[in-house]
Amino acid sequence: MAHPAASSRLLVTGIGELVTNDPQPGREGGALGIVRDAALLAEDGVITWIGPSAEAPDVELAGDAPHPHHVEVLDAGGRAVIPGFVDSHTHLVFGGDRADEFAARMAGRAYEAGGIRSTVAATRAASDDELRARLAGFVAELHRQGTTTFEVKSGYGLSVRDEERLVRLAREVTDEVTFLGAHVVPFEFREPDGPGADAYVDVVVGEMLAACAPHARWVDAFCERGAFFAAQSRRVLEAGAAAGLGVRVHGNQLGEGDGVRLAVELDAASVDHCTYLADEDVAALAGSRTVATLLPGVEFSTRQPYPDARRLIDAGVTVALASDCNPGSSFTSSLPFCIAVAVRDMGMTPAEALWASTAGGAAALRRTDVGTLRPGSRADLVLLDAPSHVHLAYRPGVPLIAETWKDGARVA
Amino acid sequence: MAHPAASSRLLVTGIGELVTNDPQPGREGGALGIVRDAALLAEDGVITWIGPSAEAPDVELAGDAPHPHHVEVLDAGGRAVIPGFVDSHTHLVFGGDRADEFAARMAGRAYEAGGIRSTVAATRAASDDELRARLAGFVAELHRQGTTTFEVKSGYGLSVRDEERLVRLAREVTDEVTFLGAHVVPFEFREPDGPGADAYVDVVVGEMLAACAPHARWVDAFCERGAFFAAQSRRVLEAGAAAGLGVRVHGNQLGEGDGVRLAVELDAASVDHCTYLADEDVAALAGSRTVATLLPGVEFSTRQPYPDARRLIDAGVTVALASDCNPGSSFTSSLPFCIAVAVRDMGMTPAEALWASTAGGAAALRRTDVGTLRPGSRADLVLLDAPSHVHLAYRPGVPLIAETWKDGARVA
Ligand SMILES: [Zn+2]
Ligand SMILES: [Zn+2]
Repeated sequence: MAHPAASSRLLVTGIGELVTNDPQPGREGGALGIVRDAALLAEDGVITWIGPSAEAPDVELAGDAPHPHHVEVLDAGGRAVIPGFVDSHTHLVFGGDRADEFAARMAGRAYEAGGIRSTVAATRAASDDELRARLAGFVAELHRQGTTTFEVKSGYGLSVRDEERLVRLAREVTDEVTFLGAHVVPFEFREPDGPGADAYVDVVVGEMLAACAPHARWVDAFCERGAFFAAQSRRVLEAGAAAGLGVRVHGNQLGEGDGVRLAVELDAASVDHCTYLADEDVAALAGSRTVATLLPGVEFSTRQPYPDARRLIDAGVTVALASDCNPGSSFTSSLPFCIAVAVRDMGMTPAEALWASTAGGAAALRRTDVGTLRPGSRADLVLLDAPSHVHLAYRPGVPLIAETWKDGARVA
Repeated sequence: MAHPAASSRLLVTGIGELVTNDPQPGREGGALGIVRDAALLAEDGVITWIGPSAEAPDVELAGDAPHPHHVEVLDAGGRAVIPGFVDSHTHLVFGGDRADEFAARMAGRAYEAGGIRSTVAATRAASDDELRARLAGFVAELHRQGTTTFEVKSGYGLSVRDEERLVRLAREVTDEVTFLGAHVVPFEFREPDGPGADAYVDVVVGEMLAACAPHARWVDAFCERGAFFAAQSRRVLEAGAAAGLGVRVHGNQLGEGDGVRLAVELDAASVDHCTYLADEDVAALAGSRTVATLLPGVEFSTRQPYPDARRLIDAGVTVALASDCNPGSSFTSSLPFCIAVAVRDMGMTPAEALWASTAGGAAALRRTDVGTLRPGSRADLVLLDAPSHVHLAYRPGVPLIAETWKDGARVA
């Protein structure tokens, strides 16, 4: 092999089980495309070679670049390597937390001071630097848990000024920023003499979208009873699409509704939650490019019934798992935890759950450069403290992420 | 305060929430005995002072020992400090793993090569050093997850030679060693022309107990259909008690049975599982010193219904949470995970679940020096990456253990 002028190289050898999500003849594990006793070479943050560990290139000597600037060699010692997790659904820019509300809910006690309104108030009150510091903490936490690509939504600002702040701050840490002005109708529009939900949607599709679109890749709307009706959601999503944003939808979380149908009609990249689905919803998803993103952290932390991943997979729907990390309904940022719950309670196999939280998440973001380990993909990978990906479900709660590498550099 | 000749000191300041499990007037959180803005001093591995952070002693200058050998000052920065977890039920000395069996079970597929028999074979085949290395890995893993005291059972040897090896190796890493020769009747006694279960019990109470008792503090028996009948369990437990061992029992896991009644009658320190209880079992526990230790990792990983902690607590029973970490039915070693599940699915509040996995675990081991942070207790404590213990349940799966200290020294 020639290595023209690579300035950094990462060679991982001794991988007992390499999950590529790139099935090929001779590989195991179906969609996981598992290679045993594997090695992997990345150059300048991109994978350039995968093969048997015994045939690993000598990175010090090979090719035309005998003196690359930086060479790392990692011996996996028989442990498993998987693609970095792709968390396609988070709400990580916010102020405060709602631990007291959570404790009250778990004890069956009423709690007046909580709800999304309290997070909106805390977020508006926080300075940019406070939100930035919080976000940096979450990014480190994601890396420690093996997540190398993540989406971040706005939606706790709910004013032009604050939504713009949130997408701008999110953009500092990820390319995958979603404008979710249509998260909920803010209190000042909902109160008895307030201007009402439609007037808020006017703001969202007008001045707010104009302020936010430059920082965002996606537009999202919460199409659910208590949030936005289908017609309101459609206005927001169509306006976002007209402004050049890709479409994603929150829907079918608390009951059957219009979210999935709207998402499929608008060719959304993903419709998220999908806890309550009619047969027609499942059929519509199966006939579409829209990914069904399931968020088991929500059902775990709200004691709701879990979505039925098995039904979706058996119907041919592409399923992703994401954390929905937010201070109200799901404050986990752990995709290993979501995998364990999905295997126990949603009918997924460990292999399906791993695929859904890596390649599935990438599909939900319409990304082909992440979620898969093959020549040409980003060198975003996780070394597990385990011989097999099965351990992510087999050992629930145990921190099994030994090392996380993003773009060929270690981040945790 | 006088500090006579302390050779090591640890001062922790700026503790936003200190969970002591030592309720006193002026403290919050009921049984948790929470102190806000607290500090804690440990000398030679024992806590000597707890109070307001503003009144923390100057460890460099205070008292009679101006030059202690070693002084550590840790600023918690407003985060929470809790007692180290006490995991009163693990099976950590074994060979092999059963990831394939787990994956098959989760997929609803039959799996012939698994079961406890496969772990017994792998354990017998492993050398002392192999088991020792494995155990060392688990100890590091426990420390990383905030566990500072843990029990380890034998029970994958099931021969005099191998049970003796397991208790001896376990004793190298913990004082809390349990002889569980009566885990299951080994295959060579069960096969059609084998000598049978009673003949195995003869060995357990005879030569095996004699070989194991010197290394163990506890005797345990699996009193359950498919394992040992009540009369057999009683023989084992009474023989163990006569040899000076404390009694603990596995019971009522798969259905109602005699385990709880036997445990209470023998004044066992703990009866573990307690998933299926008759009203009389609950009443017997409430009138006894025997702790009910619940093991939610088992129900999580076997898709069984969870035990009802609420019913036990409301009846006045002392409840502990433990991991039951083992390669078959529960391969988690994470008490934070067990807490999160107990809060979601077993009716516990976050406070009750934390108490059960610290002070409750200590009660299940009849220990008063651990599980509580007060002057005289061991300085076994955990700094959380969170402002409150509630986050252990509020943020399921997230590794929130920032630092673990045992006997006043950092272990993770
Ligand atoms: Zn969401
Ligand atoms: Zn057990």
